[in-house]
Amino acid sequence: MEKLDGLETPRLLLDADRLARNCAAMRERCGALGVRLRPHLKTAKSLEVARVALAGETAAITVSTLHEAEYFARNGYRDILCASGIVPGKLAHAARIQRESGCDLILVTDALAVVEAAAQFAQQNGITLSFLIEIDCGEHRSGQLPDAPEVIAIARAFHAAPQLRLRGVMAHAGHSYGADEPSAVVPIATAERDAAVGAATRIRAAGMACEIVSIGSTPTVLMADHLAGVTEARAGIYMFWDLAQLSRKVCRAEDLAVSVLTSVIGHTRHANTLILDAGALALSKDIGANRLMPDAGYGWLCDPRTMQRLGALAVNTVHQEHGTVLVDDVRWFDRLPVGSQVRILPNHACITCAGYGAYDVVRDGAIVARWERVNGW
Amino acid sequence: MEKLDGLETPRLLLDADRLARNCAAMRERCGALGVRLRPHLKTAKSLEVARVALAGETAAITVSTLHEAEYFARNGYRDILCASGIVPGKLAHAARIQRESGCDLILVTDALAVVEAAAQFAQQNGITLSFLIEIDCGEHRSGQLPDAPEVIAIARAFHAAPQLRLRGVMAHAGHSYGADEPSAVVPIATAERDAAVGAATRIRAAGMACEIVSIGSTPTVLMADHLAGVTEARAGIYMFWDLAQLSRKVCRAEDLAVSVLTSVIGHTRHANTLILDAGALALSKDIGANRLMPDAGYGWLCDPRTMQRLGALAVNTVHQEHGTVLVDDVRWFDRLPVGSQVRILPNHACITCAGYGAYDVVRDGAIVARWERVNGW
Repeated sequence: MEKLDGLETPRLLLDADRLARNCAAMRERCGALGVRLRPHLKTAKSLEVARVALAGETAAITVSTLHEAEYFARNGYRDILCASGIVPGKLAHAARIQRESGCDLILVTDALAVVEAAAQFAQQNGITLSFLIEIDCGEHRSGQLPDAPEVIAIARAFHAAPQLRLRGVMAHAGHSYGADEPSAVVPIATAERDAAVGAATRIRAAGMACEIVSIGSTPTVLMADHLAGVTEARAGIYMFWDLAQLSRKVCRAEDLAVSVLTSVIGHTRHANTLILDAGALALSKDIGANRLMPDAGYGWLCDPRTMQRLGALAVNTVHQEHGTVLVDDVRWFDRLPVGSQVRILPNHACITCAGYGAYDVVRDGAIVARWERVNGW
Repeated sequence: MEKLDGLETPRLLLDADRLARNCAAMRERCGALGVRLRPHLKTAKSLEVARVALAGETAAITVSTLHEAEYFARNGYRDILCASGIVPGKLAHAARIQRESGCDLILVTDALAVVEAAAQFAQQNGITLSFLIEIDCGEHRSGQLPDAPEVIAIARAFHAAPQLRLRGVMAHAGHSYGADEPSAVVPIATAERDAAVGAATRIRAAGMACEIVSIGSTPTVLMADHLAGVTEARAGIYMFWDLAQLSRKVCRAEDLAVSVLTSVIGHTRHANTLILDAGALALSKDIGANRLMPDAGYGWLCDPRTMQRLGALAVNTVHQEHGTVLVDDVRWFDRLPVGSQVRILPNHACITCAGYGAYDVVRDGAIVARWERVNGW
């Protein structure tokens, strides 16, 4: 087992015990709500993390790209929801994933034009394609409003196409991330549930089946008072958590499972700064946690062994490969000599992790595994 | 030759003609200044781009990580400056790169502790390591001030170590990126030159050699009135340019060589938005261009063939895989139907490109090559 101080920095560390605990908690939560957990793998992009999330089963999952879908399909997953709107130019790839793996790949759209193109494509190629209709539950990013006539028009277009299967509806309350307090998430969770269930009810009332009613964002799944009428919940960031979620008080500091191991590469004493080898590429330029936690910077500095925060130190500025840390006391230069390591808790795990090809998995201060990620498109 | 509309989005496009023109212009500029161009490959991270930058020669280059150094060393480059401060924990990797490739790898530090550790490491391993001392020319990110006693103390420590070679000094005027006008770069370029030349003069006056006097940032190399005393210039972003550089007026819109090809995946008419499949991972969360060009957003939308900007459209919001574009006229929904493609000019090419494993190289509207990038660490 390799020790942390033998690693060449920057490296992406994943705490195995925290990951396992976070995943167990979400499975328990969805069990209590009576919905299937369809974990979103866009954050982790890892087969091994998916196994932990699903307690070893290759059950239903969510992904954000066809590249991820293909990776999981090749590795035995048979029920995959690709939750970003599909376009006609990607249908051939979707069909290839289905054909090569035999998986049930569920696509998403809110556009009649896509249904028409998919109907033609499926007929020409003699295949079946499955879809959910995306419903806007208040974020206004994408989706049809739950009571819009387009919902029924799109559902009818699916039913008119013999080789398309309308499986259901999905809503995503991304605006739950804008809530300042967990209590402010409760009405957003209600709106997400009502939008999805409402659209499903309309589709059924029009005489069509609507088997899947899918909702999800980590905060809304945690804060919903009930999920009656919902069949499944999608969530992803709960596996890792991050400073942005901590700033929203939906997790605790000791839940944060992902960190960046970095080295002090210089002391710029005349500027009162420590320089790290973790900059914009190693941490990302996401500073989302700063809205509610203005001292988050580009990430908190922690002791590499205890994971306790080092005073109030944060990465204050980033360049491509440099992170700059303002120090409030010159004694930090003695405590963190050039060559020493620190761990950074990132703002937004989804974005930070994307800079790395793999996780170094940590347990009891040692590296116990290396888990690959499936990045890109 | 594949056409753009046959590509599955998002994809990173590199315009071959613009790249060649940009590279030729910088070679000419450095020739006029009488300094060697040591192109910085941290932006491009590509062997093929390096070949264009150096007009086919495998001459001296700059990189930002040992991972990049290893990639270029394995591919024939023999004079590589790794321009981020090294730490003792990376010396074994640096030594391995030298041993396996036979390249002259030049490391950088501003810390006496690193010199001492490197001296011990080199002696124990029977190898020679080459270094530049980093000089702070006003950015105050890293480096010793040019007149600090530490410069001479570090130089003496190098000279006292029989297996270390002090090759020279380097300065980087990263604060030139903060200048609002090209004219404001001129005094920064003067300060960069004076810092590097001044430190070299002090080292020589103390009886030690200082062969290399290295400066660079694209804006200062372009705007310096002369570079007397400097031996080489490092620059990287000039190969691609981006909106941040355009906002500083150090390039023209028609010089921007890198763009992201993306598809319209939805029309959210009730929110007056187009949704793209290029979000935070495909574009990055860098919004540096907005300080001087508030309409830059996360990138300008351009016609995929003509590269003309589409009205005033920009990516206004990003989520992981979604980009949201506010439209000022509903006719955009007709002009950009779901499934159509646009090209995004990014804020900061160094960061945007890092999301991709390769460039699709474009000439005359068709893909003529695919060039791999060396990402990560």
